Amino acid sequence: MRSDGRQVNELRAVQLDTDYLKHPEGSVLISMGDTKVICTASIEERVPPFMRGQGKGWITAEYSMLPRATEQRTIRESSKGKVTGRTMEIQRLIGRSLRTILDLDQLGERTIWIDCDVIQADGGTRTASITGAFVALSIAVNKAVERGLIKSWPIKDYLAAVSVGVVPTHGEVLDLCYVEDAAAEVDMNVIMTGAHQFVELQGTGEEATFSREQLNQLLDLAEHGIDELISHQKTALGEISEKIDTYKKDE
Amino acid sequence: MRSDGRQVNELRAVQLDTDYLKHPEGSVLISMGDTKVICTASIEERVPPFMRGQGKGWITAEYSMLPRATEQRTIRESSKGKVTGRTMEIQRLIGRSLRTILDLDQLGERTIWIDCDVIQADGGTRTASITGAFVALSIAVNKAVERGLIKSWPIKDYLAAVSVGVVPTHGEVLDLCYVEDAAAEVDMNVIMTGAHQFVELQGTGEEATFSREQLNQLLDLAEHGIDELISHQKTALGEISEKIDTYKKDE
Amino acid sequence: MRSDGRQVNELRAVQLDTDYLKHPEGSVLISMGDTKVICTASIEERVPPFMRGQGKGWITAEYSMLPRATEQRTIRESSKGKVTGRTMEIQRLIGRSLRTILDLDQLGERTIWIDCDVIQADGGTRTASITGAFVALSIAVNKAVERGLIKSWPIKDYLAAVSVGVVPTHGEVLDLCYVEDAAAEVDMNVIMTGAHQFVELQGTGEEATFSREQLNQLLDLAEHGIDELISHQKTALGEISEKIDTYKKDE
Amino acid sequence: MRSDGRQVNELRAVQLDTDYLKHPEGSVLISMGDTKVICTASIEERVPPFMRGQGKGWITAEYSMLPRATEQRTIRESSKGKVTGRTMEIQRLIGRSLRTILDLDQLGERTIWIDCDVIQADGGTRTASITGAFVALSIAVNKAVERGLIKSWPIKDYLAAVSVGVVPTHGEVLDLCYVEDAAAEVDMNVIMTGAHQFVELQGTGEEATFSREQLNQLLDLAEHGIDELISHQKTALGEISEKIDTYKKDE
Amino acid sequence: MRSDGRQVNELRAVQLDTDYLKHPEGSVLISMGDTKVICTASIEERVPPFMRGQGKGWITAEYSMLPRATEQRTIRESSKGKVTGRTMEIQRLIGRSLRTILDLDQLGERTIWIDCDVIQADGGTRTASITGAFVALSIAVNKAVERGLIKSWPIKDYLAAVSVGVVPTHGEVLDLCYVEDAAAEVDMNVIMTGAHQFVELQGTGEEATFSREQLNQLLDLAEHGIDELISHQKTALGEISEKIDTYKKDE
Amino acid sequence: MRSDGRQVNELRAVQLDTDYLKHPEGSVLISMGDTKVICTASIEERVPPFMRGQGKGWITAEYSMLPRATEQRTIRESSKGKVTGRTMEIQRLIGRSLRTILDLDQLGERTIWIDCDVIQADGGTRTASITGAFVALSIAVNKAVERGLIKSWPIKDYLAAVSVGVVPTHGEVLDLCYVEDAAAEVDMNVIMTGAHQFVELQGTGEEATFSREQLNQLLDLAEHGIDELISHQKTALGEISEKIDTYKKDE
Repeated sequence: MRSDGRQVNELRAVQLDTDYLKHPEGSVLISMGDTKVICTASIEERVPPFMRGQGKGWITAEYSMLPRATEQRTIRESSKGKVTGRTMEIQRLIGRSLRTILDLDQLGERTIWIDCDVIQADGGTRTASITGAFVALSIAVNKAVERGLIKSWPIKDYLAAVSVGVVPTHGEVLDLCYVEDAAAEVDMNVIMTGAHQFVELQGTGEEATFSREQLNQLLDLAEHGIDELISHQKTALGEISEKIDTYKKDE
Repeated sequence: MRSDGRQVNELRAVQLDTDYLKHPEGSVLISMGDTKVICTASIEERVPPFMRGQGKGWITAEYSMLPRATEQRTIRESSKGKVTGRTMEIQRLIGRSLRTILDLDQLGERTIWIDCDVIQADGGTRTASITGAFVALSIAVNKAVERGLIKSWPIKDYLAAVSVGVVPTHGEVLDLCYVEDAAAEVDMNVIMTGAHQFVELQGTGEEATFSREQLNQLLDLAEHGIDELISHQKTALGEISEKIDTYKKDE
Repeated sequence: MRSDGRQVNELRAVQLDTDYLKHPEGSVLISMGDTKVICTASIEERVPPFMRGQGKGWITAEYSMLPRATEQRTIRESSKGKVTGRTMEIQRLIGRSLRTILDLDQLGERTIWIDCDVIQADGGTRTASITGAFVALSIAVNKAVERGLIKSWPIKDYLAAVSVGVVPTHGEVLDLCYVEDAAAEVDMNVIMTGAHQFVELQGTGEEATFSREQLNQLLDLAEHGIDELISHQKTALGEISEKIDTYKKDE
Repeated sequence: MRSDGRQVNELRAVQLDTDYLKHPEGSVLISMGDTKVICTASIEERVPPFMRGQGKGWITAEYSMLPRATEQRTIRESSKGKVTGRTMEIQRLIGRSLRTILDLDQLGERTIWIDCDVIQADGGTRTASITGAFVALSIAVNKAVERGLIKSWPIKDYLAAVSVGVVPTHGEVLDLCYVEDAAAEVDMNVIMTGAHQFVELQGTGEEATFSREQLNQLLDLAEHGIDELISHQKTALGEISEKIDTYKKDE
Repeated sequence: MRSDGRQVNELRAVQLDTDYLKHPEGSVLISMGDTKVICTASIEERVPPFMRGQGKGWITAEYSMLPRATEQRTIRESSKGKVTGRTMEIQRLIGRSLRTILDLDQLGERTIWIDCDVIQADGGTRTASITGAFVALSIAVNKAVERGLIKSWPIKDYLAAVSVGVVPTHGEVLDLCYVEDAAAEVDMNVIMTGAHQFVELQGTGEEATFSREQLNQLLDLAEHGIDELISHQKTALGEISEKIDTYKKDE
Repeated sequence: MRSDGRQVNELRAVQLDTDYLKHPEGSVLISMGDTKVICTASIEERVPPFMRGQGKGWITAEYSMLPRATEQRTIRESSKGKVTGRTMEIQRLIGRSLRTILDLDQLGERTIWIDCDVIQADGGTRTASITGAFVALSIAVNKAVERGLIKSWPIKDYLAAVSVGVVPTHGEVLDLCYVEDAAAEVDMNVIMTGAHQFVELQGTGEEATFSREQLNQLLDLAEHGIDELISHQKTALGEISEKIDTYKKDE
């Protein structure tokens, strides 16, 4: 049994509170155990300069943590006057992943801004951000489709993300909490579609290395976790999930 | 009746969810109607360089908004690489106000960081931040006193803040929501102690001016609002409020 | 008698040297005792992007101190690479105040830049800046009206600013010099029109608080000081002051 | 045959010019086809603040491109005043990878700075940087060991990196040049030790996705490429390579 | 006759108002025609980190212009968030020149800050800054010597600077005003000691070039101008100039 | 004999490797002894905003050093987030010098970017940059003329730069290497055309001064060095040099 009583292939408690905020077109508060992230999707009626005149849309993401989301208070990036390398990596990862399942041609010349703000951190904030961002995106897109702004349903498949890793006490495990993450020898983030296709795979030996055999065990755990997360997304999205399913069948 | 059905001297619904987050020494989610701010108090075991060696403490505040706390998405200050003038004004105001009711000599050489993060904005975010910050501060201080870090109770009195203003439709009103604030001719923030002493008074004619008579009416409304807010603070703080009351009696 | 021999309700020696510099459309060197500020008004034939196409003008202000305006040398903000919170607050205050008495609709699509550069500081630099800026503005506007650029006189009333405060040795006093300001328990800046209307009121308990009775005494002192400052402005502006008086009568 | 005449499992021409520069402790110019990177290793006799007093060393990396390393001139990051997200990702990746094969405990309190400056870019600059950095590091470490600064040989194994990907015309291929990289559906960087252990694995579907079967084919190609690169490293390092081999046998 | 009625070898009207400001150890307002610069010298009782522990002093300079010193308003460098290349060049030039005539060993571990703030610009602001800075420096040093802070007189010789140039209408001329400077084909700044030794020589063909013969004519004009400027410095410094003369004789 | 065995009027070994890089329109690796600089010229089909609509071109330069071009590692300017004053001075000098011999009217509305990247430094990097930049510029311009982009040959004369100085051991010397430069009492950079006209002359007494007689000796040495450098440029440019010679004859 792991430090919080879970099996090696068990996710933490997942909760998706949709329409958490009043102003954004789509919003959700995602909880994965004690990790809590507010994900919002905002639609802007123009694209960045490098995209203009192509008749298609864009999606971009920003990520941040409240200073006291963490055990020790973290200095605000606005106070430092710059965004850290870690934040940039995560922002680029979220945006890139969502672009894989979104048909930008269907959006028209508009930008979807994804904001992931971690209000409490206990490991796995970047994967929780992606899983939550998919839900916020789907709600915002659905509103735009219902209002006739977007002509044709543009979300091609589900998208979820989960961490797996190798920890000294239990070997390969799914969905690491902070204490596990801090002790892990190998840390891997897996982002997958509903069709079990990889979107992104990032594995790092933390001052250690890993064999191909270990890689395969980690990927098995990840696939299992992704399936469960997508099942939570379906429940949270309710009727909207039918539109995603329909798109997939049509293809 | 005002746009949201209130009387001119009526506050919006006030809610104070204490211990809202897991990591900070003190935390509260304050709601004033649709305005929601996460306020945390963090204790750091050192003071900034300019305070070292004096045997006393320091308190400082930071303020921020989630990008989609507002009707239109606001660009993050971390992305812009600098903190705006408005944010700096608010941060300085929160810190300065709290320093008035906190006996820094009793803290020892430690810093209390106040973080006010607006997750939803509907007018009055800076006054809500101060009212909430007082509660988070009291909880954090209480913990430090109970652990023996702080030897003697250092909070001298209650502190709350409220906005008042002159709006075209109803004249002088208490606790402006966003639509009122946008239309207001005069906008005033009043910060007061439990003993009805002014801590800060900031009145601005928004491309208009105001007479001394109007000033007096606005201050009457503010005193009334402050009394109600402090009553909410007492309820939220429970037994901790007795320590504040005792300090006041002793003096 | 105060440290410099003044009565509690007495201003320091006021001097307004108009047309102090050769290039700007309007300029004045204002001295309030040893506080000396060069105020200039520059007219630019365009407005900032957010104002374009509305057919009206804009006024904005910048404030700075020479490094050795102060007792101890202050690091330049250009060397630090950013403007401090204090400077931003003052700049915003100057601009906001002047917008109250200037009819932006009459300016046409042009911007007036106010620059207040403190060459010697002895307390009250922000209020001296506002009182001086009004004079520089009036001179620049008069030139533009005489050249036919601005069609109709746009300055609605006089505008002056003064500090008042509570000091340990003399209680409520008018126009604090630096040593008084450093010792003050309460510090208040009052900005008023010729018609005794408040434009801005900012009172701060400096690690102290103040009662409503004290507030009223401070406001009485301020009104008296404002009257004298406006009388100095009239003398300095000479014939230009008639145009301001005429506007007020017409209304 | 690929655009440059290679087989799908064939590396571009690899060249390692050691001691390319006069001042650095270790330096190499690595060429992978037309991609050319100057890699240097500099030894500094202190560690960053967060490492002090632990008796161990640190290694960190910086990466940059000459403005005209690319087809179109790129703006310098020094002119922009900030390092881009892409650069930060690469710098962190290089440093993290090298830390895996370097025994920091043996370094003593000193920092090794790795600088990778791309003077000509034709795809695969980050993997070439890592392969070259390993060589520069080994030369610098060898010098420090010979001078008695470092007491015991600290490099545990070889380290090389290579890109693999899926391109529309040839499916899975090894070591993508720029035109292949621009067209690739899947792009993966693999960093491995001489013992075929993964150090880092980063696979990205570029607006596409990939199956587990494709992943396996890509990894087979990568292992083959890594073997060849390490063989080039051994030749370039000459006698130094014996020390690495000895360390591995001893373990 | 030149545009302002001068002979080719004639300086503009020179004025040196010493002790212009109240706070700095040394200050002067220098006027060269319509060019006016406030020069101050401030003594700080420590040296920058790279100079510590050597028992000697340092001198450094900063230069700035008020936004409306110029015909067109210039954006503040503090607003831009960075110091321009032109300002850096001038600051480095002022500091380097003064270091030539100041014996840093005699200063003890203290820094002299020179601030040159142009309040009105009409050409030649950098040379006026140097000529004025020498006077402010001498006053500040004299005060420190009289107070016993500096043990032995450290200023070795006079220092002055002047511009010369080639203009289309009059050929080689001394001390260019702004309209001449804007039209000049060659622009040269000459910085010299009282002993006619060059400290710095900077000649630039402004989209033109110049022959060695022209160079010689320009240097003759410059020597003549420097002599006159030093004569003004002597008058302004009064008794202090005797100490400089004595140092020179002693050597 | 100097430290490296040269006569006082002898240049270091000069080498110009043209077409050193694949992508830029013009490129050269210039070596002056151990000083090595990659110079590139890039042509952009537009001019900066302040030049638009005038039908003429622009040329601008950037300069940088690899961190380990120097004996001690230098921090990257991109990491510091700003360009140093020294770099700005050099960049402005390179651009200004090249503008003297380039007829901007013949370029059409295009910008030539010169990049000088020092990969190894041993004194004289700024003069080597100018001498090399001239060659890269000529190659790039020649390509544009041959492609018909530039209608008429725009380079008016050769341009080269060299350092001269006064060193304690040998007096006046030509082309200082780093150890000489560090010990020099006087340091002068001379930039000249093929017709022996000065383009720029910058002489600095390094905490020393120099007489007019010394100046004349230094200029004689510089003229001699410039002649030799231009002879190297002619050889490197081959047939292109005929176009420069023809332009000069035509004039």
